[in-house]
Amino acid sequence: MRLDLNAPSLEDNLADLERVACALGEKGIAISLPLLRELPRLLREGGWQLSVMLTRLGGNARLLALEKGAKGIPNYGMAIDIGTTTVAAELVDLNNGKVVAQASDYNRQLVCGEDILSRIAYAEEKGLTRLTELVLDTVNGLIAQLCAERDKQRKYHSGTCSDDVASIVVSANTAMVHMLLGLDPKNIRYSPYIPIANVPPSLSASDIGLRALPDAPVHIVPGRAAYVGGDITSDILLSGMHTSDELALLIDVGTNGEVVLGGKDWIVGCSTSAGPAFEGGEVSCGMRAMTGAIDKVCISEREISISTIGNAKPRGICGSGLIDLIAQMFLHGYLDKKGRINASHAERVRASGEGMEFIVNRPNGSRPIAVSDDDIASVIRTKAAIYAGCSVLLQSVDKRFTDLDKVYIAGGFGSYINIENAQTIGLLPDIPRGKFKLLGNGSLGGARLCLQSQTMRAEAFDIYSMMTYLDLSSSKEFFDQYSSALFLPHTEIDQFPMVRERLDANR
Amino acid sequence: MRLDLNAPSLEDNLADLERVACALGEKGIAISLPLLRELPRLLREGGWQLSVMLTRLGGNARLLALEKGAKGIPNYGMAIDIGTTTVAAELVDLNNGKVVAQASDYNRQLVCGEDILSRIAYAEEKGLTRLTELVLDTVNGLIAQLCAERDKQRKYHSGTCSDDVASIVVSANTAMVHMLLGLDPKNIRYSPYIPIANVPPSLSASDIGLRALPDAPVHIVPGRAAYVGGDITSDILLSGMHTSDELALLIDVGTNGEVVLGGKDWIVGCSTSAGPAFEGGEVSCGMRAMTGAIDKVCISEREISISTIGNAKPRGICGSGLIDLIAQMFLHGYLDKKGRINASHAERVRASGEGMEFIVNRPNGSRPIAVSDDDIASVIRTKAAIYAGCSVLLQSVDKRFTDLDKVYIAGGFGSYINIENAQTIGLLPDIPRGKFKLLGNGSLGGARLCLQSQTMRAEAFDIYSMMTYLDLSSSKEFFDQYSSALFLPHTEIDQFPMVRERLDANR
Repeated sequence: MRLDLNAPSLEDNLADLERVACALGEKGIAISLPLLRELPRLLREGGWQLSVMLTRLGGNARLLALEKGAKGIPNYGMAIDIGTTTVAAELVDLNNGKVVAQASDYNRQLVCGEDILSRIAYAEEKGLTRLTELVLDTVNGLIAQLCAERDKQRKYHSGTCSDDVASIVVSANTAMVHMLLGLDPKNIRYSPYIPIANVPPSLSASDIGLRALPDAPVHIVPGRAAYVGGDITSDILLSGMHTSDELALLIDVGTNGEVVLGGKDWIVGCSTSAGPAFEGGEVSCGMRAMTGAIDKVCISEREISISTIGNAKPRGICGSGLIDLIAQMFLHGYLDKKGRINASHAERVRASGEGMEFIVNRPNGSRPIAVSDDDIASVIRTKAAIYAGCSVLLQSVDKRFTDLDKVYIAGGFGSYINIENAQTIGLLPDIPRGKFKLLGNGSLGGARLCLQSQTMRAEAFDIYSMMTYLDLSSSKEFFDQYSSALFLPHTEIDQFPMVRERLDANR
Repeated sequence: MRLDLNAPSLEDNLADLERVACALGEKGIAISLPLLRELPRLLREGGWQLSVMLTRLGGNARLLALEKGAKGIPNYGMAIDIGTTTVAAELVDLNNGKVVAQASDYNRQLVCGEDILSRIAYAEEKGLTRLTELVLDTVNGLIAQLCAERDKQRKYHSGTCSDDVASIVVSANTAMVHMLLGLDPKNIRYSPYIPIANVPPSLSASDIGLRALPDAPVHIVPGRAAYVGGDITSDILLSGMHTSDELALLIDVGTNGEVVLGGKDWIVGCSTSAGPAFEGGEVSCGMRAMTGAIDKVCISEREISISTIGNAKPRGICGSGLIDLIAQMFLHGYLDKKGRINASHAERVRASGEGMEFIVNRPNGSRPIAVSDDDIASVIRTKAAIYAGCSVLLQSVDKRFTDLDKVYIAGGFGSYINIENAQTIGLLPDIPRGKFKLLGNGSLGGARLCLQSQTMRAEAFDIYSMMTYLDLSSSKEFFDQYSSALFLPHTEIDQFPMVRERLDANR
């Protein structure tokens, strides 16, 4: 922002800081002492023209950076989604709300364990410091990368490249928030699973060690519980379900498989401990949705057609590909209801270990990509947990899948999933396709909204306040529902009428 | 404060920080990351009993210190008046608002110059760093002294003695605030006399380098202008004139002699550049109000009786003593209207330099304590400036001294001044004694009020907002009034009817 101030006189003797606050229409304004010490010189050297960078992210208006004269200071914010596996970030021009650049990277904590529980175990054994450093490194690396990209786009040369981010919003699961802030996540691991904070206090970039202006406020989207974190609050915020009259279900398919049900009057959420099958874990040929991953599969009478991310040589199968594959195998009779491979299809199936193996593809000159009975069992356990979570939530408020007006799908593969195939395997409920809406990375999207608007940050807090958490870890209903869902598509085929039709048509 | 919390369970799964906030009745609560990192351990080791130190001084509730268990944490605040000459401090038990200990010390900046302008000149020549260090040393010394005294009183043993002050209010003139915060006071010295900030931003003890809990909020009482600082706001706050229907005048007799006029609807203030005569400056036998200073003088037919502070051997004369002395000399014919010593009183008067000298006292075996024509001229210039300031303020709103309902006297010697003698020399207006009220150290008193209550801090800001500043530095009215007041008691003796009566009775 550029300020054109009157030079003071005996008649107009406002102090320097009050003159700036007055021009900004603020009654009071926060500023650090080091910056305040520079103010009188900059005002006078700039002939009472001053460029300021202002943030209101921490609540009150705060001056973050000053330059003499009217050349202006760019005003950028960073929305960051810290996932257990992937960290994604967007650089937003706060003057117009536009995303200038985006990037993602693996969470460097992966060297300490694949999933949250193994990271917490690492922290207990070897201390938290390394985990905090690794996630900070990942985030700071992305900030530097995005600022450099912006500078290239804008041909903007600044001596303090990458240090001029004015505000940051972080959306992450509860354990990741703890690790980022150096808070011991130990109590998250054991019943009753108590975080140190679901609503972290107001912090600045320098408190945390993030690469931005030292006083840049860092807003951390509040979470609801140890396993329903701020990433889920962001999903809800992006979906808008918390302001709608409709009854909506939201499913975030990550390692945990969080599920949320509700509308503008109430929201109830749970975590299903679904497991990492859809993120490439516990599946021999599984991989994350990256270049070379088979993300779509279609089986016809004659062949299996696949597509890979980046049209690259296939290296494995990611979550959406696994859903397609298992659904198509089931529809074409390669699998029975229990998910066991039918040995009669000799051309594609061969014995492997204790079970059978289905050969999906044989890349030139390398080991075939194949799924085994065990791989399919992993996927079925994962989908059963998510579907059971949805069922228990609906049961808890005496509703059925057919009462739903909307189903939002968020999470890493939220943008790619084939709804029909997901219904075929019993991951998603068998209700009309029009009710489903893909959110993509809802955690990042919600963080972006919070970065752009104070109202959205208030709404995120409202979501936190209104959400009820349902603990499934000792729920008999959940166990029963889970057991019923360990079939393709489900023990109660009546719940999947359209899938039944497809099966009847194919057989 | 002691918190008795429920241990969490699957049904009651509030996060640690939210559990504490909830018990405190707060929606959100500020806490530093280092303290938050300790919270889970302290809660669990203390069996869900927690002692907390909470402050609301910075606006929002903030946790400053935590101890496991229910033994409690003492909660002390510090009210500090930083004068150019003297720094005074009070340690207040914030649980009951009581002053536990008080102390004062010379401002160690005195080695860099006696008055504000010479200190600012020092900063311009040699840099600000030393001045900031010296005033911090003074203040931190007082904090340590007062905390040690409290610990002795309470037999309270803490490993972190003196580091447990939970909130601080500083009241000081504008230049002192600048020097404390390391803000260059240069522009205060030159027209149009613009401070960097009259309302300093929210700061913590660690921002400034004050010896207290690192996050202890430091509230600096807002000032109005370069020469009407937060010390005057504190005076007004303590007097209560800003909430009264009465028309009140407030005079702070320090080096500058600030004067304020008004009531609940408006307040106008000015600084008179009165000079340091009443603080012992520019008077050969002058000294500050400390042990050995002659603070009261009474002249009768037979003798001059004096009293000294601490009943000690007289070493010089402080402000209240000078007022008494000159008033009594004038009443008994030792001085003419222009303040010149009458040479006819041979037993007490002798030639000295270019003028005469009046011998007040001859301590055993040492040089006599005496005032010269020059000394008296200094005092008259000082009293004339203050009286002229009062006159101009009244004129500016078309009022007269007789319209005043109250006159508040603040400043170092505010508690000791003899009103009648001050009227005799024309320092104070000649209106009924019952209208005068001595505030003592109003700056410290106002700081104490701000420390004790959020409402008082808001009122201090209201005073800042409602006060108009009148610059006298180029005011013809002021110069005229000043010239008229360079007599005993004044050119227009009609303004001093009771003094005239006393003079007529004595002569």
